[in-house]
Amino acid sequence: MPKQITKQSKKYDIFFRIRIFDDSGHFVGKGRIELLENIGKFGSITRAAAEMKMSYRQAWQMVEDMNEITASLLVEKILGGKGGGGAKLTVKGEKVIKVFHQIEDDLEHFSRQLAKKIKF
Amino acid sequence: MPKQITKQSKKYDIFFRIRIFDDSGHFVGKGRIELLENIGKFGSITRAAAEMKMSYRQAWQMVEDMNEITASLLVEKILGGKGGGGAKLTVKGEKVIKVFHQIEDDLEHFSRQLAKKIKF
Repeated sequence: MPKQITKQSKKYDIFFRIRIFDDSGHFVGKGRIELLENIGKFGSITRAAAEMKMSYRQAWQMVEDMNEITASLLVEKILGGKGGGGAKLTVKGEKVIKVFHQIEDDLEHFSRQLAKKIKF
Repeated sequence: MPKQITKQSKKYDIFFRIRIFDDSGHFVGKGRIELLENIGKFGSITRAAAEMKMSYRQAWQMVEDMNEITASLLVEKILGGKGGGGAKLTVKGEKVIKVFHQIEDDLEHFSRQLAKKIKF
């Protein structure tokens, strides 16, 4: 008897990028969240901006745009001190990062289920 | 008695772009699906490419890359005839467009539910 050949169905993956907008057009997306994360990591807007090949001004404008979303500051400047000042995330800044990743995770989970059912 | 002021919670929207990859790295995304749709609409690869500010060669390479996903042709060239030939979508080409939009719709529905629960 000939061997039965079963056609293996192909596997697919869904990749996505999201942006979360408020109703005034302010948004957070992957890049902006990375900026916040880098500010938190380096304790410096200048350093975070350089890491992402942006100017300080661009980085600061992004932060200011994101401040509008929550109507509160996401980044706090620390004046003076040993290193000549720096910056740190506020509690709200940490929250925005957390919420964004949670949404990404939920969508990731859902799209993995969808991907299993794709049949072109 | 003073009127109770309830703080209205802000509304957010989640926007996303997806790409569906097979395990060899071939993919369909929004732009490529638009290309297929334009080929179907205009009955011409040249015209569809122009519409999307691509060269014929770029457009054809994208179609060829997508053919690999399904291991079958998505676009059929029509040789000769009155207008000097053209192109049309195969049944599989139509199917790819449909599946892609279905995935987008499912994700759209899910992300609308997620968006309602966002609280920064």
